[in-house]
Amino acid sequence: MDNRNHAKDLPPVRIGSRTFHSRLFVGTGKYETLDVMKQALEASGTELVTVALRRVNLNNPNEPTILDAIPQGCTILPNTAGCYSAEEAIQVAHLARAAGIGDLIKLEVIGDQNLLWPDPVGTLEATRQLVEEGFAVMVYTAPDPVLAAHLERAGAAAVMPLGSPIGSGQGVLDVRQIQRIRARISVPLVVDAGIGSPSDAALAMEAGADAVLVNTAIARAQDPVAMAAAMREAVWAGYWGRMAGRIPRVEDAQPSSPVEGMPRVGA
Amino acid sequence: MDNRNHAKDLPPVRIGSRTFHSRLFVGTGKYETLDVMKQALEASGTELVTVALRRVNLNNPNEPTILDAIPQGCTILPNTAGCYSAEEAIQVAHLARAAGIGDLIKLEVIGDQNLLWPDPVGTLEATRQLVEEGFAVMVYTAPDPVLAAHLERAGAAAVMPLGSPIGSGQGVLDVRQIQRIRARISVPLVVDAGIGSPSDAALAMEAGADAVLVNTAIARAQDPVAMAAAMREAVWAGYWGRMAGRIPRVEDAQPSSPVEGMPRVGA
Amino acid sequence: MDNRNHAKDLPPVRIGSRTFHSRLFVGTGKYETLDVMKQALEASGTELVTVALRRVNLNNPNEPTILDAIPQGCTILPNTAGCYSAEEAIQVAHLARAAGIGDLIKLEVIGDQNLLWPDPVGTLEATRQLVEEGFAVMVYTAPDPVLAAHLERAGAAAVMPLGSPIGSGQGVLDVRQIQRIRARISVPLVVDAGIGSPSDAALAMEAGADAVLVNTAIARAQDPVAMAAAMREAVWAGYWGRMAGRIPRVEDAQPSSPVEGMPRVGA
Amino acid sequence: MDNRNHAKDLPPVRIGSRTFHSRLFVGTGKYETLDVMKQALEASGTELVTVALRRVNLNNPNEPTILDAIPQGCTILPNTAGCYSAEEAIQVAHLARAAGIGDLIKLEVIGDQNLLWPDPVGTLEATRQLVEEGFAVMVYTAPDPVLAAHLERAGAAAVMPLGSPIGSGQGVLDVRQIQRIRARISVPLVVDAGIGSPSDAALAMEAGADAVLVNTAIARAQDPVAMAAAMREAVWAGYWGRMAGRIPRVEDAQPSSPVEGMPRVGA
Repeated sequence: MDNRNHAKDLPPVRIGSRTFHSRLFVGTGKYETLDVMKQALEASGTELVTVALRRVNLNNPNEPTILDAIPQGCTILPNTAGCYSAEEAIQVAHLARAAGIGDLIKLEVIGDQNLLWPDPVGTLEATRQLVEEGFAVMVYTAPDPVLAAHLERAGAAAVMPLGSPIGSGQGVLDVRQIQRIRARISVPLVVDAGIGSPSDAALAMEAGADAVLVNTAIARAQDPVAMAAAMREAVWAGYWGRMAGRIPRVEDAQPSSPVEGMPRVGA
Repeated sequence: MDNRNHAKDLPPVRIGSRTFHSRLFVGTGKYETLDVMKQALEASGTELVTVALRRVNLNNPNEPTILDAIPQGCTILPNTAGCYSAEEAIQVAHLARAAGIGDLIKLEVIGDQNLLWPDPVGTLEATRQLVEEGFAVMVYTAPDPVLAAHLERAGAAAVMPLGSPIGSGQGVLDVRQIQRIRARISVPLVVDAGIGSPSDAALAMEAGADAVLVNTAIARAQDPVAMAAAMREAVWAGYWGRMAGRIPRVEDAQPSSPVEGMPRVGA
Repeated sequence: MDNRNHAKDLPPVRIGSRTFHSRLFVGTGKYETLDVMKQALEASGTELVTVALRRVNLNNPNEPTILDAIPQGCTILPNTAGCYSAEEAIQVAHLARAAGIGDLIKLEVIGDQNLLWPDPVGTLEATRQLVEEGFAVMVYTAPDPVLAAHLERAGAAAVMPLGSPIGSGQGVLDVRQIQRIRARISVPLVVDAGIGSPSDAALAMEAGADAVLVNTAIARAQDPVAMAAAMREAVWAGYWGRMAGRIPRVEDAQPSSPVEGMPRVGA
Repeated sequence: MDNRNHAKDLPPVRIGSRTFHSRLFVGTGKYETLDVMKQALEASGTELVTVALRRVNLNNPNEPTILDAIPQGCTILPNTAGCYSAEEAIQVAHLARAAGIGDLIKLEVIGDQNLLWPDPVGTLEATRQLVEEGFAVMVYTAPDPVLAAHLERAGAAAVMPLGSPIGSGQGVLDVRQIQRIRARISVPLVVDAGIGSPSDAALAMEAGADAVLVNTAIARAQDPVAMAAAMREAVWAGYWGRMAGRIPRVEDAQPSSPVEGMPRVGA
């Protein structure tokens, strides 16, 4: 494993006023136990952990909560999962701020219960409102390059297109859309949903994501801790794969062993 | 980077009588300079390096050759690249043995010059012959599950299906074929051609490859050394991604933040 | 050819107050000559032909225009191609109505010049306004199921998701999105962009489109008249393919020649 | 429907000494009833119908058989479905000839029971043998361009690559392989397995198939007769789509409504 310790660390990514050295963001839903979750979060090396605000017991500070299982040093990213309108999402953001969790928020305004597909109208509206109120808004969105540009103009701190439906494990269905969004926005791009395996995470990074957010693929893997470590390395590999400048895709073969000018040792 | 140093190293893979701790095999064609190649091979962590025998100057032992740029401790895997018949490939294998490179050989019998597609007939024939002569034969083949089983029965030490045409950078075009071959053979499966990026390497490992062989994607990357490191981690990530037991792919969304039984803090 | 004359004609599709017996809508851009265009439109069997209003000379009624090359009996569908805001598109619609072309309009509000990707915000706004003014609005949109439902609620007469970027010939990149939109709206669904070949058109229909709109794939084919006829049949085949209830996709093989209980004539 | 009656009929395809005006070949397995099969075969317009020889009662000529439900004028193509070796397949071919069905044979030598994947070794061996004995051999094969060339050299009357596993309804998984085979052989190319819908059939023809063979997709459709008609038109559409010269696929959009030099009627 020593040879993994080479000089090429990841440069940090900046979202709002915060800086993260890990580019793997992790969710907290669906783990079997809080203990497994804690180990997986540690193995992932993450510094940003998202929590559905509805799962946090805001009323009784003495009761142990999901927050207690999040490793020291991680930033908590409250999300508005389960909100179906701008109003509802804004209200949840207010509660997060009131509870002292801070003003970094992951905005989800869902428009379809089966697909958990974001509502472009409510999402844009809530982004504008929350930005005006001083929140740093990380926005879950469809992988739509024009909508992504609208969200950036509305002041989003990060644009978070889905790769495929939440929890579906289908990966990034249309890599080109991630590349197109990348070419059209300046704020960080985080692929937010659909990652099912390490290769999906690497592919998202190769396409230009600054980070990926993974939840189900880790939480519901047979071995969440091993999967968390695999995702961590895949994000690293995808980042450097992009930086290293990949070869072009071509239709036909390109010999890797040039034989021109070589002595024919064969027949 | 310290957190990359966790306990889950890769178990070694055994091919013929040899054991390899790295599951990234690397080719030596197409590098700009031997120095870049040497650095890339080192960054890759590889222990098995393939060389087109035609590129080795077997006649003048005093002249520096490609072999001098291969890191200490790597096994040399001579290949029969550029051979278009069983006879020709067998002859090249004999030369390798005569030159003292050993009896591990990567067999390529090409059937089409533009696609560098393997010839199933000549490949099977040469495999039988070389196995009989005591070679440990790692066989480049089309991703055909029935042909793979024939090759194993013929005594191949490893079956090496292409993911897509050599040097095309298209990755693994049909993951199911790799999975099907995996389910039908017992000897190591090495995805041998088409890898273009770290996500491709991870995907090959997730599909069941025991190792991947990469040449053009490293040699022709803008930064071959960084790409070699990225490939190394991607192979690691893909291996553990497979071992960790990925979630199933489903069509529609699966909420990662369960809201049942949660207090409705929103509207 | 007689056997093509069987009883299964297509049921008509109703958009706004109009009824169309052909489910192939055709555009008028990019033809080499107006004569080729006329022949292609005739071969296509189309009854709805879209025209960029900017190409129509509205000022000089004596000058021959593109409209003269459109077969008798076809409905003209003016479109707002080239409009980058709701205001601009609405203004073009007003001109179409003033010119007596009618109140059926194809609305395009573009948000990105290179992708010709629709702007969800401007598109929804213009739809609302034009519906209020009594237009029957056929709306070009991204293949977003939530946005499609918004457009229907806004009163769209037809929702027209792109299959892939305009003129790209990539077909329907994500068939599931077409199926999802189909499941969420009641007005006609027309796949509007990206069709490159007859199989693309058939696939769109199989996925649930009520019609397809084709322009570049016919106009820029080497033989536009033959391609128009091929598209016509493909739409027919795709419609009946959907109605006939296709077999499910499965991973492995299903023997088509059952051999159980059959006398073994072989060895 | 009259407009379907235009001048562009399909040119006939010649296989061995026979000529077929329809390019849709149909199988006879899996129909609910012989009556439904008969209607579907008629609706398909086929002139070549394949029958698993094992399903034909060769012993009792008075008993009604599947052959009685095949429309007049169709050529019977006995196949060797269910054979797992060259010997077995050759024996079945001999029985077909002895029964007077003729010397046109569809050769299947299966190498894997779950995938019904062809065995390249047994297939090539049986092809050579049967060609020597005077059979016109239509060969089911993996979509391997080098193997296809071997089969042609062995004397195959038609090469029949699978698009995806038999009965899987996955269509043509790698269109490029069909195109590559097309570029490498001169005898007719028939896509033989995996067709699930009319768009799949059209795509196979567009890729260069001279004909397609469909069984499960028709026999197991909810309405086999309607599906047979849809497949017939799809084959026609795919053929002419290829002949008409499709537009290239490009990544980004190409405006279909050129606006250069047009009067700006908008803002």
